[in-house]
Amino acid sequence: MQNLISKLTGLPGIGPRTAERLAFNLLKMPTEQALDLAEAIRQIKTQIKPCSVCCNLTDQDPCPICSDQRRDHSVICVVEQPKDLTIIEAAGAYNGVYHVLMGQIAPLDGVEPEHLTIEPLIDRIRSGQVKEVIMATNPTMEGDGTALHVASLLGRLNVKITRLARGLAVGSQIEFASKATVTDALSDRKEL
Amino acid sequence: MQNLISKLTGLPGIGPRTAERLAFNLLKMPTEQALDLAEAIRQIKTQIKPCSVCCNLTDQDPCPICSDQRRDHSVICVVEQPKDLTIIEAAGAYNGVYHVLMGQIAPLDGVEPEHLTIEPLIDRIRSGQVKEVIMATNPTMEGDGTALHVASLLGRLNVKITRLARGLAVGSQIEFASKATVTDALSDRKEL
Repeated sequence: MQNLISKLTGLPGIGPRTAERLAFNLLKMPTEQALDLAEAIRQIKTQIKPCSVCCNLTDQDPCPICSDQRRDHSVICVVEQPKDLTIIEAAGAYNGVYHVLMGQIAPLDGVEPEHLTIEPLIDRIRSGQVKEVIMATNPTMEGDGTALHVASLLGRLNVKITRLARGLAVGSQIEFASKATVTDALSDRKEL
Repeated sequence: MQNLISKLTGLPGIGPRTAERLAFNLLKMPTEQALDLAEAIRQIKTQIKPCSVCCNLTDQDPCPICSDQRRDHSVICVVEQPKDLTIIEAAGAYNGVYHVLMGQIAPLDGVEPEHLTIEPLIDRIRSGQVKEVIMATNPTMEGDGTALHVASLLGRLNVKITRLARGLAVGSQIEFASKATVTDALSDRKEL
């Protein structure tokens, strides 16, 4: 019991008291249900692996997106994390493929370019099928830095590099927008 | 005293109890300070008027922006409210002039196009000096509707019509962006 409690402690949001409550709950739970949970934990660590093409986490290789021939394989949308990919997929407006960097360059946190999946991305583009790379890193300092670094590495290859649009969020109010957002919205204005 | 309390009641966020407290506070205040407040209220109602050019509220006519010859009078940024103009000015990235519509078309709230300052805007553009009109209405249903209505009226005149960029706000995270924002950010993507 003490073993289980100490293993649960330290998961995000779970302290020793919550771990104890969870452990007792698992003890009272039907055996099958508890073993299912144990099996599910085992499976994500043994079966979920990076896709050999896009580096997204998947239980198939290549992942369902990379192996979908109805998608446009000439456009690659480069994201930082699998959850960013999920958000873009949920919006339903993109039909190309992805590349997951698995982080952002942040030297202060010890994340250097070589820790990201930039090399596999360059290999994909060298294969020649790719026409456009959309840098969909976060519009933050680290995200912009990562996008510029990747773009500079891709600059020598014959590929168009774009980034997501910046400006006002739909449904927002100009009066609550930041100065930087207003500046972006003005400088990137679009013909109506 | 009862007269003052009833006049204060009904200002935004001020109920009868707060109005009473304010009234007693005014009574205890040095005479000069209270009269200054009364005078300031009188002044905004008698001296602040719409600018005869851009319709922004001002105590000079034309307002300081319209009479500033260092600004680019060939670009007009069309906003809904004076506070939107203040936000865009604060961003410091715009050197053209403005036009304040004084609202947005909202038939359900009884605001029809003729209640806005659209006619004076058309007159300004007919004068011939204007090359571009930037529609900076809010990126909401009513704001978009207003922008489209104004743009359709300006369509016959020889002027370029643009709108503020839509997309991700600087410093935001893709994982928290709405579907509509992600869709805009993808479709308006920009070459890096």
